[in-house]
Formats: sequence, C-alpha cells, structure tokens
Amino acid sequence: MAVVTAPKQDRSRATRQRLLQAAVACLAERGWAGSTVSVVAERAGVSRGAAQHHFPTREDLFTAAVEYVAEERSSALRALPVQNRAAVLEALVDLYTGPLFRAALHLWVAASNEEQLRARVTELEARVGRETHRIAVELLGADESEPGVRETVQGLLDMARGLGLANLLTDDAARRKRVVAQWGRLLHEVLG
Amino acid sequence: MAVVTAPKQDRSRATRQRLLQAAVACLAERGWAGSTVSVVAERAGVSRGAAQHHFPTREDLFTAAVEYVAEERSSALRALPVQNRAAVLEALVDLYTGPLFRAALHLWVAASNEEQLRARVTELEARVGRETHRIAVELLGADESEPGVRETVQGLLDMARGLGLANLLTDDAARRKRVVAQWGRLLHEVLG
Repeated sequence: MAVVTAPKQDRSRATRQRLLQAAVACLAERGWAGSTVSVVAERAGVSRGAAQHHFPTREDLFTAAVEYVAEERSSALRALPVQNRAAVLEALVDLYTGPLFRAALHLWVAASNEEQLRARVTELEARVGRETHRIAVELLGADESEPGVRETVQGLLDMARGLGLANLLTDDAARRKRVVAQWGRLLHEVLG
Repeated sequence: MAVVTAPKQDRSRATRQRLLQAAVACLAERGWAGSTVSVVAERAGVSRGAAQHHFPTREDLFTAAVEYVAEERSSALRALPVQNRAAVLEALVDLYTGPLFRAALHLWVAASNEEQLRARVTELEARVGRETHRIAVELLGADESEPGVRETVQGLLDMARGLGLANLLTDDAARRKRVVAQWGRLLHEVLG
C-alpha cells in the first residue's frame, strides 16, 4: 500500500487551519485576556515557532481566525438548500449564537479598548457585515429596490446580534424562538 | 454666613454615588481588565479604604455600578413626557449606545469567562431586562394581551441591543437612524 505524503504546501495549509480553529475556540472560551499565541499553539498541537511563522503577532492570529470562521459560515449558509423564509431566518439568527459569535464578541470588546486591534477589527467587521447582509438579502429573496426593504433586513441582522448577546450568559433559546417566529411574520408582510 | 455641614449619612451616600459613577465610566473606557477598585477610588477622589468600606470586592463595586446607572436611566425614561411612538423608540434605542451600555457589555463579556461574576451579572441582567421591557411596553402603549405584541417588543429591545453592539467600534448613528425609522413603521402596524 502506497503511503501518500501530503505536499509541504498542503501540510502548511492544514497547520494554518488548525491554528485558526483553535484560536476561535480559545477566544470563545477564555476571552481576549486568556488568549495568547502560545495557548493557541498548544491547543492546536503546533510548536510556538510554527505558529509564529504563520502569524507573527497575536493580532494577526485572532483577526485571521475570526475572518476564517466567518467565511466558513458564509459558505455553509450559501450552500443551504432553498428553504422557506422561516427556516432561513432561523439559520441567520443561529449564526449569532455559537462559538464564532462569542469569539467575535470578545474580539470586538477587546478592540474597543486596544488601539492595535481597533483598526483591524473595524475593517474586518465591516467586511463580514456586508457579506452577511448580501447573503441575507439573497436567501430571504428580498428586493432592495423597494423602499424600506434594505433597512428591514439590516434591522433583522441587528436583532440577531442582540439575540446573540442575550444568549451569552444563559440559554435564551426558548424566548428567542418566539421572538424570531413573530418577527418572521412581520418580515413576511414587508417582503411579500 | 452659616456653613452647612451635610450629615454623615448624606456624605456617605454622596461618596457611594461618586464611586458608582466612576466605576461605570472606568468600565466603559478601560474594560474589565483595566478596572480595579483602586483605579475607581482614585478617579472618584476617594481613598481606597473608603471605597472598600462601601464595596468590599471588585465584583460588588461593578455590579452595583451597572445596576445604579441602569436604575437612573430607567427613572429618566419613565419621566419622559408622553411622546409619539417614534420619539419613544429613539429614546429606547439611545439607552444602548452610551457609556452605560459599554460598561454593561464589558461586564457581561467578563462574566462569561469569570465564575465569580457570572451568577451576579446573570441575575442583574434578568432584573434590568424585565424592568426595561416593562417601561418599553408602557411608553409604547403596547397591549400585551394581544397575540404577538410581547414578542414584538422583545424583538425591538433585542434589535436595540444589537444596534448598541454595532456602535461599539464606529459611529453607526446614520445607519441606525434609518433602521429605527423603518422598524418604527413596522411596529406601528403591529401596535395599531
């Protein structure tokens, strides 16, 4: 049986991905103060030197991590089979209740007090926000040339973010389900 | 001219309030990691011993601070003259864009990773959340016996929280104004 050795480039990419996934998990569980390159390298089973080869600074690692996971989520969302609007709304809201949201939240809050992080996270957040909006419009079948539709979708994503925050300390799933069901009905009236 | 000396109890209350206000400002500006009893005492112009007399632990000081400012805000909101619904909605959303929201956000996020804080902040958040909901229902003239009205108001407050988060790193006022105007129209259709 032939042993297939992954080319160097593939191994390097796999190491990078392990680091990014470990970084998001670490940020979600320990927050910014508890998240260093060393802690992430250990969690990923990668040497500190290898980690620093991929990500020279802590800021590089964590902004790349949040971006990577956000992109994975966007792809998964885009790949959803065409569904009814209620299911789409639920999937959109779910984006804001998992470890990615927790990780991003820790990064935003740290960035609000740390100059080095602030510019990078602001730029990242704008990019991820635009992309999420585009996907939401597409999945909801919303026609943004109609007055008020753009702001309705934006408000929904703001609500989803607020629901994510409400879920930070306690399991808010039961209340969230009722709120989303009601706003789904209102959405249907606006979008037709 | 007679010098009026405040009774001891009044001075003590004034010291307590200075500490609470300094604690919220400190939390909003520096986050949890940068907020200690000593830093707050210095900012309030109070000795560390006096601060510890009022608040034996860091957790005591910061949860009391967020609660105190939340209560001040609730009173101010209740005292608003009866206004049209658009103005009420704007005032409610404004609650989530100032230093109190930033301070509370830092406290929530810290509590998600620190066991000592978690139970206290969860309890505080539930209390403040119920109170804000009550005030919103009252000011909006919402009849919660109608189906869907309760969830509509909850969703609005979730949206307001999400808008607060969107305002953390950049000034989001222009976008927020358009979103709130549109959701105000939707609200009007539900509440009649």
